[in-house]
Amino acid sequence: MKDFTLKSIALQDVRVIRDPIHNYITIDNQVILDLIDTPQFQRLRRIKQLGGTSQAYPGGEHTRFSHSLGVYWIVVEMVSKSVIRNCISDYEFLCAMVAGLLHDLGHGPFSHSFEDIFGDNHELYTVRIIKECPQISRILDRISADMVEDVCRIIEKSHPNSILVSLVSSQLDADRMDYLLRDSYFTGVSYGQFDLARIIRCIRVKDNKLVYKHSGVQAIEDYILARYHMYWQVYFHPVGRSYEIILKSIFKRIKDLYSRNFDFGDIEYLLPFLNGTVTACDYTNLDEAVVLYYFHKFTTCDDAILSDLARRFLDRDLLGYIDIDSEDNAIVDNIKARQKIRGFDVDYYVGIDTQQAVLYHYYGDSHQIGEIEIVKNDRLVSFLEMSEIVGAIVNSKKNKEAHKIYFPK
Amino acid sequence: MKDFTLKSIALQDVRVIRDPIHNYITIDNQVILDLIDTPQFQRLRRIKQLGGTSQAYPGGEHTRFSHSLGVYWIVVEMVSKSVIRNCISDYEFLCAMVAGLLHDLGHGPFSHSFEDIFGDNHELYTVRIIKECPQISRILDRISADMVEDVCRIIEKSHPNSILVSLVSSQLDADRMDYLLRDSYFTGVSYGQFDLARIIRCIRVKDNKLVYKHSGVQAIEDYILARYHMYWQVYFHPVGRSYEIILKSIFKRIKDLYSRNFDFGDIEYLLPFLNGTVTACDYTNLDEAVVLYYFHKFTTCDDAILSDLARRFLDRDLLGYIDIDSEDNAIVDNIKARQKIRGFDVDYYVGIDTQQAVLYHYYGDSHQIGEIEIVKNDRLVSFLEMSEIVGAIVNSKKNKEAHKIYFPK
Amino acid sequence: MKDFTLKSIALQDVRVIRDPIHNYITIDNQVILDLIDTPQFQRLRRIKQLGGTSQAYPGGEHTRFSHSLGVYWIVVEMVSKSVIRNCISDYEFLCAMVAGLLHDLGHGPFSHSFEDIFGDNHELYTVRIIKECPQISRILDRISADMVEDVCRIIEKSHPNSILVSLVSSQLDADRMDYLLRDSYFTGVSYGQFDLARIIRCIRVKDNKLVYKHSGVQAIEDYILARYHMYWQVYFHPVGRSYEIILKSIFKRIKDLYSRNFDFGDIEYLLPFLNGTVTACDYTNLDEAVVLYYFHKFTTCDDAILSDLARRFLDRDLLGYIDIDSEDNAIVDNIKARQKIRGFDVDYYVGIDTQQAVLYHYYGDSHQIGEIEIVKNDRLVSFLEMSEIVGAIVNSKKNKEAHKIYFPK
Amino acid sequence: MKDFTLKSIALQDVRVIRDPIHNYITIDNQVILDLIDTPQFQRLRRIKQLGGTSQAYPGGEHTRFSHSLGVYWIVVEMVSKSVIRNCISDYEFLCAMVAGLLHDLGHGPFSHSFEDIFGDNHELYTVRIIKECPQISRILDRISADMVEDVCRIIEKSHPNSILVSLVSSQLDADRMDYLLRDSYFTGVSYGQFDLARIIRCIRVKDNKLVYKHSGVQAIEDYILARYHMYWQVYFHPVGRSYEIILKSIFKRIKDLYSRNFDFGDIEYLLPFLNGTVTACDYTNLDEAVVLYYFHKFTTCDDAILSDLARRFLDRDLLGYIDIDSEDNAIVDNIKARQKIRGFDVDYYVGIDTQQAVLYHYYGDSHQIGEIEIVKNDRLVSFLEMSEIVGAIVNSKKNKEAHKIYFPK
Repeated sequence: MKDFTLKSIALQDVRVIRDPIHNYITIDNQVILDLIDTPQFQRLRRIKQLGGTSQAYPGGEHTRFSHSLGVYWIVVEMVSKSVIRNCISDYEFLCAMVAGLLHDLGHGPFSHSFEDIFGDNHELYTVRIIKECPQISRILDRISADMVEDVCRIIEKSHPNSILVSLVSSQLDADRMDYLLRDSYFTGVSYGQFDLARIIRCIRVKDNKLVYKHSGVQAIEDYILARYHMYWQVYFHPVGRSYEIILKSIFKRIKDLYSRNFDFGDIEYLLPFLNGTVTACDYTNLDEAVVLYYFHKFTTCDDAILSDLARRFLDRDLLGYIDIDSEDNAIVDNIKARQKIRGFDVDYYVGIDTQQAVLYHYYGDSHQIGEIEIVKNDRLVSFLEMSEIVGAIVNSKKNKEAHKIYFPK
Repeated sequence: MKDFTLKSIALQDVRVIRDPIHNYITIDNQVILDLIDTPQFQRLRRIKQLGGTSQAYPGGEHTRFSHSLGVYWIVVEMVSKSVIRNCISDYEFLCAMVAGLLHDLGHGPFSHSFEDIFGDNHELYTVRIIKECPQISRILDRISADMVEDVCRIIEKSHPNSILVSLVSSQLDADRMDYLLRDSYFTGVSYGQFDLARIIRCIRVKDNKLVYKHSGVQAIEDYILARYHMYWQVYFHPVGRSYEIILKSIFKRIKDLYSRNFDFGDIEYLLPFLNGTVTACDYTNLDEAVVLYYFHKFTTCDDAILSDLARRFLDRDLLGYIDIDSEDNAIVDNIKARQKIRGFDVDYYVGIDTQQAVLYHYYGDSHQIGEIEIVKNDRLVSFLEMSEIVGAIVNSKKNKEAHKIYFPK
Repeated sequence: MKDFTLKSIALQDVRVIRDPIHNYITIDNQVILDLIDTPQFQRLRRIKQLGGTSQAYPGGEHTRFSHSLGVYWIVVEMVSKSVIRNCISDYEFLCAMVAGLLHDLGHGPFSHSFEDIFGDNHELYTVRIIKECPQISRILDRISADMVEDVCRIIEKSHPNSILVSLVSSQLDADRMDYLLRDSYFTGVSYGQFDLARIIRCIRVKDNKLVYKHSGVQAIEDYILARYHMYWQVYFHPVGRSYEIILKSIFKRIKDLYSRNFDFGDIEYLLPFLNGTVTACDYTNLDEAVVLYYFHKFTTCDDAILSDLARRFLDRDLLGYIDIDSEDNAIVDNIKARQKIRGFDVDYYVGIDTQQAVLYHYYGDSHQIGEIEIVKNDRLVSFLEMSEIVGAIVNSKKNKEAHKIYFPK
Repeated sequence: MKDFTLKSIALQDVRVIRDPIHNYITIDNQVILDLIDTPQFQRLRRIKQLGGTSQAYPGGEHTRFSHSLGVYWIVVEMVSKSVIRNCISDYEFLCAMVAGLLHDLGHGPFSHSFEDIFGDNHELYTVRIIKECPQISRILDRISADMVEDVCRIIEKSHPNSILVSLVSSQLDADRMDYLLRDSYFTGVSYGQFDLARIIRCIRVKDNKLVYKHSGVQAIEDYILARYHMYWQVYFHPVGRSYEIILKSIFKRIKDLYSRNFDFGDIEYLLPFLNGTVTACDYTNLDEAVVLYYFHKFTTCDDAILSDLARRFLDRDLLGYIDIDSEDNAIVDNIKARQKIRGFDVDYYVGIDTQQAVLYHYYGDSHQIGEIEIVKNDRLVSFLEMSEIVGAIVNSKKNKEAHKIYFPK
């Protein structure tokens, strides 16, 4: 693909999308425009970015659609405003944009709870959708027969060019940077703000890796702490977690009832997930509207547990909670016993939730490219060594943890 | 209700809700807290504030839930930070808060299109829900047997105390002020910004009316122009209108097919709206998730028009458009003829849309309390006389209008 | 200068300046960098953008230094993000950047009041400084022997290429756009906000003129109204005007005393302005710090009027005011008479101030290029015809005017 | 002062000041209004909040005047929106407001450099000005004969009621909170942002101390890190430090020349600081404008060093720098030797600057009330124990330090 040029797919009339985070997101090539217009991508308008969090922060109703556009745009900015532009080919640039745009295609409705119960993995499904849904793959095939594969390898972090992977999926990638700014803006908290423009300005390429200039350490530190505080202030908010616990109980109850041949009525769009025959294209039919509809129906179904949980979910009649120590089995047993006496099935009505956010390396343990590296005097140094703050916290080996038990008020 | 005090229902532990527009919205009494927890109010989480607009501005996914909280809060601010606090009783203050909070309860899914076809009126339904749904009315009954009626009269603009009506429903009310700021913030445009703090500071009461101090004229002017520009830049965006036209065509097609006894499968929650037996409580079951689910199902139904429209709606495969003069029947006829030849039923596939936003008195024509009045030298003067800008525009009798015809690309 | 390329003066290491309005202002060529480093440009750090306004809005302490950088940057953005980039040469682009950067060099301390009394004109002095101060001219001479002249002709609006003039000095130029956004931000009001990104996106070139796309009319309307509201809410604030009136009285008293050979002590830096021998380079020595120092000294001088006015100025012990009709000579005479009785010299202690801001064509009357033009269906149409709002106001021929008389409290 | 009520000094017509940080700052009593109108307080308009920092961040031109209003306002908010309102008397509340408003009165021009050379201490001078300047003290005397003393004891941290001291001067006080938000806004960086509203909501009073609720730990953590990042990104910016080093050299040269009876011409306002006879009221005459004027004059004085330094300062012709290890005397000696050869007097032209910001307890070491305490399960716990992050950093005993040596380019 050495011959490919972005110019060859340039739009005559550049499109812009107004976005509160990035002001204008510009679409200047046909491939990105066509991908946005696929049903698979449009479906992301019906998958919210934050599941239960919007129960605690009512402004947080934004979708994976606008987030995905944002990730695409940060990839464009990271490349075109840095030295990366000179280090990758036009084709590689396009692959990175596409990977950024599509990286969330595989998210199910209320994604994390859904994944927990139905055992799917959104990254896996993203790759399957790109490969199996012809509306997507034929757009990429037009550029090159390898493009589907190349895009998927970026998403799977197996692409040989680590710069492309770093842009889309690392500890300091376009995905995380967009969601922190976006979640912060829509929920109305200041915690997730950091200095994106400066981080982009500090990008360097060394030994074929995306690394950062020494003077960017503070901005990266600020970003890492922003993420940490967003976890504790926003993503771990007990109202949101309580909502997720009910959600998981509903999915669990559905699964359990299905195994007992319960008559749900028409649940066509859920069936493939229950009987394990799900295809990539089944995803296009399953969105949060569909799931919410089923919950409406379940409120009047014959199973008392399912109908009660569905009603609680829709009416936001959530579970209460108390803080516990992790080892504290006595309290847990006691609460379970009391709920049983009150008539609640503890498998569905009592949930224990452990909150823990590793400040650094949160998602990065499993792959070597997660590490942020800094150029100092022309040598690469680990970010941990350069940052007194993050270094001290990581070395302290104290990970903030909290445990809560949820049960009916 | 002279004896009623807000202190008697004060919460010991004041609740706050984080909101990007107002930072913290404070709930300090039991009545407001209980109303928020009703299923009718929680349903507003599943009704978006902006229908088709979010198709053009992907950030605009906020719901009537957060807007309603915002209206409540602006009512609280307008009263407690102005002389109104001394002019109305605690009971009247509570009625105004409740009216602000609940004023949008009667909105159907994708409200304006839905109303157009099913002929309901959201204000009417709001009043019915407050009166007929026991979850709501019993909260109000606890305060006073008249409270349901008093709140409804504020919403219906028939309450004898015009100050209360002005707070919730006038040309410069908490509703409009919240939605301009909110829609502007979430869509990411600057047009809807105006100086709320200054407007509140300029509130005066004269002749038992809510009026404004002379020095507030500029801020009000700015608000009126903000609204005008929001209409033209955001609410009238052709992508949003195209989406609304398809939506209306879908509802129209459903209605037409229903009259021909088409077999829709299970459309339980829509039925009362089709057969005209809708009760206030049917509203609780009908939200945008349910409607979207039906649209999913319709994509595979036996009616080619309904299935195509539903698919277009879900996949955002919208209609194109051209600008027309209003009188230009030749072009309209020509376009319709061509669409017929292409095989499209013009009743559903061709739509004419007229955009017109009266700068001043937009909603105010029908009721005398819409007029904004200014105190100058202790006399009341019409805002129109005080504002060179708005006066000139109104006197010019030129109303910006635009007409577009939509049809398949 | 056809051979000149910006590449030939490109900086290896691009500089950025953090700015609250534009986030990062980028300096990528040696000429701009060198000009910023001249004493004449650094002097602008000691000339505030808003004279008396900061007395009413204490946040408004920003200087002509940051404003000038902002104007430079908007010129860069208007050119590089629009079709203008293809319509002008690299040399012309550089001339426009430089004209934007330097356009305010000739501002005296507390500029408008100073100009009123000492009869200089800041535009004239800007041109003189560029031509006469070798630190500036030699930087431009290095590029071309004509560059000094070409830059000055842009500032004087006599350059043959009207696009360059429009960028720097028209009704919708980089200067006005920067100061509205900047003054609004620093004073903390919302009135001056408008959609700069959209205006830039709508730039077109037709018949060798800088014009705007039809879809930009709303954004331009919003900009014009933003300017109008900034005048009435911020620039005309009576506290600021009162401060300017005292300032003018001080300058007037100095002039009057000078003509009577009053012994001021050392006023070296003011002398050239008093005896009419001012050179361009005298400007570098006269800034607001110097003038404030003289005022400090004057508080203890032998002239009672000068010492009192200087004290009032430093301690913000300003004049009071009442609104008057313009024709109302009786009230004016009456007030003057009363102040005389109180012992005040009415030549210095009574001031009449007329506020009037023409919505459109405010500065544009004298030159043909002030008109904003819109491309519609490939024809150029006056903005006034396209904007119902601005058209109606201009046609109404009602210009908001206000008159105030100021005198000691 | 048990009988004193704020009502007794309430303004009939409340004043508001527009401020970009707090939107509206409200003045509702006569004492605060009168204090703002004193020459001593108005002088703060001519003392900038950030000395050299505005050389690196040109937006940072805000003054101690607006900062002082902001501190006053945060004190009002901390008290009136928390339980403190019920724990202190009206008189104590007024004393805290006044202390917040006046705490910076004693700052000299370009304060820290000035203090370093002339050995004054701004806190000491603040107290002297309040006690010795009759314009201030007589306003306070009207309320109570003790008020001057009580206000000064808050500023000196010796007041018996630790709540009052904590409001104005502790590790989490109105002063620091205002300057972080303000400096961040005006310089245009995001680092200083934190969640002020939440911190105020978490205020509690226990054992007569101002403490914080457990759920506020994250917000406080964020504030502490915001401060840390502001130090490293903004306050320690090398351009700003270079400017401060020249400033200090100028003051040092003035002092040295004075001791040698150098003829400066008229430096009336500086003399008291040179000959050690400075009175509190001399402060009113010395502001940054006066100092800048002297620098203008010095550019043509007979001392080559002073004239060169003054010119460098005015024209921002600053020193360059390189990073050094603290122990690295060889490099320092080498640089000094080379500057000597170039003809520079190293006492004035070479400066070593050590940057170090203690994350926690930065100013708090010397006094016991600096510690932030958290209520958890009705017990007081040190903030350090509650914050994994700040705890880890403090325990790591690694303090980020940097050393630079400055010398002529």
